[in-house]
Amino acid sequence: MSNSIAALFQCLTQGVYVVGVAHGENCNAFTAAWVMQVSFNPPLLALSINPNHSSYGLLQRGKAFSVNVLKQDQLELAAHYAEPAGADKLALVEWVPGRTGVPLLNDAMAWFECEWVGSCPAGDHVLVLGKVIDGKILDAAARPMTYQETGSMDGAAALFPDAFTPS
Amino acid sequence: MSNSIAALFQCLTQGVYVVGVAHGENCNAFTAAWVMQVSFNPPLLALSINPNHSSYGLLQRGKAFSVNVLKQDQLELAAHYAEPAGADKLALVEWVPGRTGVPLLNDAMAWFECEWVGSCPAGDHVLVLGKVIDGKILDAAARPMTYQETGSMDGAAALFPDAFTPS
Repeated sequence: MSNSIAALFQCLTQGVYVVGVAHGENCNAFTAAWVMQVSFNPPLLALSINPNHSSYGLLQRGKAFSVNVLKQDQLELAAHYAEPAGADKLALVEWVPGRTGVPLLNDAMAWFECEWVGSCPAGDHVLVLGKVIDGKILDAAARPMTYQETGSMDGAAALFPDAFTPS
Repeated sequence: MSNSIAALFQCLTQGVYVVGVAHGENCNAFTAAWVMQVSFNPPLLALSINPNHSSYGLLQRGKAFSVNVLKQDQLELAAHYAEPAGADKLALVEWVPGRTGVPLLNDAMAWFECEWVGSCPAGDHVLVLGKVIDGKILDAAARPMTYQETGSMDGAAALFPDAFTPS
């Protein structure tokens, strides 16, 4: 049953991003699909993150995050940043710190830099709202990677309940 | 300047949905792109809606919404539901009410039925969290419409600020 619920949710269209976080000297980055725009003025992005994620502490302390948009040919980068914390995942790629210190990847299609302006519990995740304070398109000819392209990379199918239940 | 900010935000990948709302005998539906999954268990969707939208009152009173996933060849439907309120936008298409009364479109690729479980202010919009209580894939061979395909249909480029500003 969870397989068919997983298939249903795959009808929703998402991109694939490397989200960067930083606090003082410490920074990290991880692959995420649950990012979307939620306001025009001010321009806000929402990021849904598992509060048990190894980068959540840095996000809470640094009160900022970057959203680096991956391109269609960057599945290896998506897999790299989807690995569990441990080694320095930022050692292998070129990046520069934004004004808040968050990592901006030189090889991304585009990046956004966001300041934390609010949060809201959302089931097994937390929605973090970020005001976009800067952003840049680095490769206007690229096409963004879609979550569908990543197949079963993140093992998400196992995380759904077996059936829907009313509240 | 707002044109380049608009181009930057087009690097984010979204789908296109017809969101249905209902309260008692009244129901309505509108086109939306700002929908994403935000939790696995319970399965939650977030919908970002302008609180001045003509359907927001029905959404608040009915405490439920449907998310009907449009297919790649359904630009006319997307344009139809993007029109301002007035005529009965649900008169022209076949639909059935979900258990909460919200309209489920027979021609969608898939639909989700959600119960309002929370909300959170988000700039010029409101994020509404819906617990998915039912859902179905109607056309597994279809591909979902992407927001990029709708071009300038919604006039979004004019809604961004002229420049980014820190908090």
